[in-house]
Amino acid sequence: MMQTIHLADGLAPVEAFPGEELANLASDILRHHAGEALQYGTQEGYIPLRRVVADWLNADGVEANPDEIVIVTGAKQNLDMTARAYCSPGDRIITGAPTYMNAIKIFHRVGAELQTVPQDADGMDVDALERLLAGASRTGGRLPKLIYDVPDFHNPTGTVLAPERREKLVSLASRYEILVLEDNPYRWTRQEGEAPPPLSYFDRNGTVIATGTFAKILGPGLRLGWVYARRSVLDRIEPYKADGGTSPLCQMLAYEFYRSPGSLERHLEQVRGALRVKRDAMLNALELNLNGHATWSHPAGGYYVWVTMQDGFDTDIIATEALAAGVDVFRGSIFFPGDSPPRQHLRLSFSFESGERIREGVAAIGRITKAQPRNREMEVT
Amino acid sequence: MMQTIHLADGLAPVEAFPGEELANLASDILRHHAGEALQYGTQEGYIPLRRVVADWLNADGVEANPDEIVIVTGAKQNLDMTARAYCSPGDRIITGAPTYMNAIKIFHRVGAELQTVPQDADGMDVDALERLLAGASRTGGRLPKLIYDVPDFHNPTGTVLAPERREKLVSLASRYEILVLEDNPYRWTRQEGEAPPPLSYFDRNGTVIATGTFAKILGPGLRLGWVYARRSVLDRIEPYKADGGTSPLCQMLAYEFYRSPGSLERHLEQVRGALRVKRDAMLNALELNLNGHATWSHPAGGYYVWVTMQDGFDTDIIATEALAAGVDVFRGSIFFPGDSPPRQHLRLSFSFESGERIREGVAAIGRITKAQPRNREMEVT
Repeated sequence: MMQTIHLADGLAPVEAFPGEELANLASDILRHHAGEALQYGTQEGYIPLRRVVADWLNADGVEANPDEIVIVTGAKQNLDMTARAYCSPGDRIITGAPTYMNAIKIFHRVGAELQTVPQDADGMDVDALERLLAGASRTGGRLPKLIYDVPDFHNPTGTVLAPERREKLVSLASRYEILVLEDNPYRWTRQEGEAPPPLSYFDRNGTVIATGTFAKILGPGLRLGWVYARRSVLDRIEPYKADGGTSPLCQMLAYEFYRSPGSLERHLEQVRGALRVKRDAMLNALELNLNGHATWSHPAGGYYVWVTMQDGFDTDIIATEALAAGVDVFRGSIFFPGDSPPRQHLRLSFSFESGERIREGVAAIGRITKAQPRNREMEVT
Repeated sequence: MMQTIHLADGLAPVEAFPGEELANLASDILRHHAGEALQYGTQEGYIPLRRVVADWLNADGVEANPDEIVIVTGAKQNLDMTARAYCSPGDRIITGAPTYMNAIKIFHRVGAELQTVPQDADGMDVDALERLLAGASRTGGRLPKLIYDVPDFHNPTGTVLAPERREKLVSLASRYEILVLEDNPYRWTRQEGEAPPPLSYFDRNGTVIATGTFAKILGPGLRLGWVYARRSVLDRIEPYKADGGTSPLCQMLAYEFYRSPGSLERHLEQVRGALRVKRDAMLNALELNLNGHATWSHPAGGYYVWVTMQDGFDTDIIATEALAAGVDVFRGSIFFPGDSPPRQHLRLSFSFESGERIREGVAAIGRITKAQPRNREMEVT
């Protein structure tokens, strides 16, 4: 039986896992520091690791203090913590549409109501956001509690929020006293070009809650992420971290791996190189197999290509048939918060499989697409 | 400066950490299985580890299936998941008083209202529970959604729920269609005597949600626990596990450590031996230093001694003064859910410090207690 080709979940590139090096570090830690690695840690996390993260953020132009960083068990945990801390049932959260499917689930689970703003090739349309906020404010309507975005290599669209939009987004949020949840797992996976500053860089008033992760720069299996925010914000969020603190063993491993200056850039070479090869394989395969039937994003980083089929195709059907043919992809409809989401998108993850298997998977999607009876009626309804 | 003597938090005994053995296992796992250990795992956990847990439960007379076990990031995570899944703001949860302070916090955070039932040397008074449920049912009052208890070596009292009470508790819950959250971190820390069956053993209708942990039998630093419940219950709880799955690396480590039959009993010898020495040191030190001023529990397992001062002492003050003198203990008042909790108890944890430091710490508490101006007025108000 053919092994399923994984183009759905955002799995990390195994080629870039530093197994050998972590094996040596884990062995040292457990042999000489078991009393710390196997004991309870603090709720806020291992301070040497928080210092490393602060250094990274500072290198990005942010003035972060280790006290303003809390280690979490995967960045996703912070989406839950922040939503619980700031949203009661019925409160509004602003997102783009499409947006990260797990954020949708997490926000819905706290009873939040999702309100979407348009986005284009430069990310969230902040002028539309301004009109929405101004309108709500003028008419005495409810303002949202949070604005959620993935500014770097957006999930699922792959876009990068333009620098001037970043500044405006933060300034709008600050003016209307709304928090911005900056979810930035892909920032360090850039495969070409220069990074604009993160949203936190533009923050003057403690408006931004930034969250990052070791999943894409070391290994998701360590379940390590961080939150960076003002101390008063962290004090409100932290009680919702109900796991008794993140694993000291995993934190010490990450710290030992990244303790020396330059170690991030050195390891990112591996990660970015692996991803670049895979991305190019996917873009070439799409050109070869879906040209004339679809358009797709050309991401400069991240894990995903966002495919938009021509009218009449139904990607819920295509994704189901692809899975039956041994290719797992995400139908685009799961990335839209509302009812009756569009069914003309696919999210294809290039982060995990080899170039050869990516080509094989995309070819299968091409065959399945071309064999679809195109529903012309869908275009006009 | 003297290092603080830790008799407050339930830290695990470092002597029993198998650092050397875990160092070798971690090294093997990361060298040969990095692709699995460092990748995302599943939401439900590593199936070989779930099989190990099922075997342990089955050895305890429970008929557990690995499908009915979900690995969580510390048992505490499940208190949060279960409370969120089953309680809306204003819903009631029954606990003993005193009870585990973090359970109180977690339940309050979901907006639950805590309703207490008395407990004595045999644990929760199930006859009182029966009257409470019958009364609520008869008068059309609100029945609770959950009954929470720590049946083995209760936190903080150290009591073991009597077997006939276990059976009655489960049968009452089943009759009134209330779930029982059996929090059982200390079950395998028994230092003498025989264990009664867990609550799950008496469960015929999927009334019990049982949660356990690797914290006390391997190391808290791995952040590994489990939930055992009917599949339909797990389906409802699981979505509230928002950390993207528990660390595969940590799960694989625990599995490799416990994969061979007899490994649990073998390692428990170490854990129990270490705890027994510490407990005896504490009980002797209490006899020497607090006799005539307090009474205390004589736990057959677990981590804690529950001290009850004679009338007129204020343990909020004693705990504060002890900390200033370098001895960290928990004032008993934090273990009571309601307002104006009694201030005549201390929880002393013997699990972490050496016998010598335990003796030193308890001697300091003795000195501080004897120097207290006893507030005779408190007795009569």
